[in-house]
Amino acid sequence: MQSKICKGCWQQMHMPVPLRGLASLPFRAFGIRPSRMNPNTCTICELMFSKVMRASKISIDATILFTDIRGYTSLSQAHSAEQVSALLDDFYDACGAAIWEHDGLLNKTMGDAVMAVFNFPIRQGDHTAQALRAARDIQQSWNTKRASLAESFGLAAKDLEVGIGIDCGKVSFGEFGRARLDLTAVGTVVNTASRAQSVAQGGEILVTEAVHDRLEELGGSRGQAFQLKGFDAPVTLYAA
Amino acid sequence: MQSKICKGCWQQMHMPVPLRGLASLPFRAFGIRPSRMNPNTCTICELMFSKVMRASKISIDATILFTDIRGYTSLSQAHSAEQVSALLDDFYDACGAAIWEHDGLLNKTMGDAVMAVFNFPIRQGDHTAQALRAARDIQQSWNTKRASLAESFGLAAKDLEVGIGIDCGKVSFGEFGRARLDLTAVGTVVNTASRAQSVAQGGEILVTEAVHDRLEELGGSRGQAFQLKGFDAPVTLYAA
Repeated sequence: MQSKICKGCWQQMHMPVPLRGLASLPFRAFGIRPSRMNPNTCTICELMFSKVMRASKISIDATILFTDIRGYTSLSQAHSAEQVSALLDDFYDACGAAIWEHDGLLNKTMGDAVMAVFNFPIRQGDHTAQALRAARDIQQSWNTKRASLAESFGLAAKDLEVGIGIDCGKVSFGEFGRARLDLTAVGTVVNTASRAQSVAQGGEILVTEAVHDRLEELGGSRGQAFQLKGFDAPVTLYAA
Repeated sequence: MQSKICKGCWQQMHMPVPLRGLASLPFRAFGIRPSRMNPNTCTICELMFSKVMRASKISIDATILFTDIRGYTSLSQAHSAEQVSALLDDFYDACGAAIWEHDGLLNKTMGDAVMAVFNFPIRQGDHTAQALRAARDIQQSWNTKRASLAESFGLAAKDLEVGIGIDCGKVSFGEFGRARLDLTAVGTVVNTASRAQSVAQGGEILVTEAVHDRLEELGGSRGQAFQLKGFDAPVTLYAA
């Protein structure tokens, strides 16, 4: 569901910034429009650091979600760029819909990898639970799409399964680079979520101990130790 | 060197779109400003597909460059988000300067990974040669920076070396996703460049056979077969 005013500006400044319809036109002339990272927030929210908060980076508690399509590299060798493009269109859309429904930021895409941040610019007391719900929505909506997609590639539906990794905790969020500003989150939590995703099986959601500890509903699941690239000690992950 | 008018608009439409100074102000009011991906092109260039070319994706011959910092994940475990942020700021800046000097697009960053595209929106007959020059500039400028950076992390300069991978050929370039438009390149060339980067040693530039064949100066270098993730057959790469 698309919001008529910017959720971020409303929450943080009690300012009703219109995103859609006639009321939004004067705003658009000044470059204020729905953010590409979350259409329920606006471009002011993206600039909030330098313009409103006067800091280029802040340290926040956030939940980070990574997902990608198993076997993307090998399938893209064997198929046309047009077919692969259509697959990515569908995948980005499925991810965007699920992430935005739970007020997250679709922060980054690189090839078939998608990175989402929960708890900024829209603050959520239960951002870790929201991220897990978004992950389940991605798996579910992708499941309904991938059978017909796989058929168009001459593959089994299983070949297009996605893996998801989630971690939560303190990240540095803001603009990186001096010449080219880039809004993103940085920190161990980001790397752990990314590595958890890379060891997740197709169809699986792997979460860290920190996520497991915050979510009562995961009480029953048992952890497994994984040796992750770049980590000295094994990391315990839970299927969620 | 920063250009006063948009190089992309000038090249493709012979339209002098001012990027800087007084003449640029009326343009800025309409959201036309230097692109974050290449400050010598403008936001019109980013939108050129749907607005000017009436296609959301085009197939072009391009050169793709990937680079990242060896050991980034492990060093970011042991250091504060502030320190890691400062490292990324420096790295993005070094990459941006080198890529823009050679008219490339700093298309994507994700953590310590940087992806650049050469031959769009600024067309270059010698885009593969330009990409290699950019890669060498990145290695060189990073070499002068990383010694002091490594010291601040209590590391050896060697721990902050970067690896680079380059491939060239047909890619699908344009806007991906329907709800969240994302400007990028997709195709085998992109995946091969990314995988070449991941097997490059610190300080190394690995290029594919296609790149090697286009650049006379690489005539003397001998290829080595690599088993890359997602590729069935071994791929021959050349140190450049």
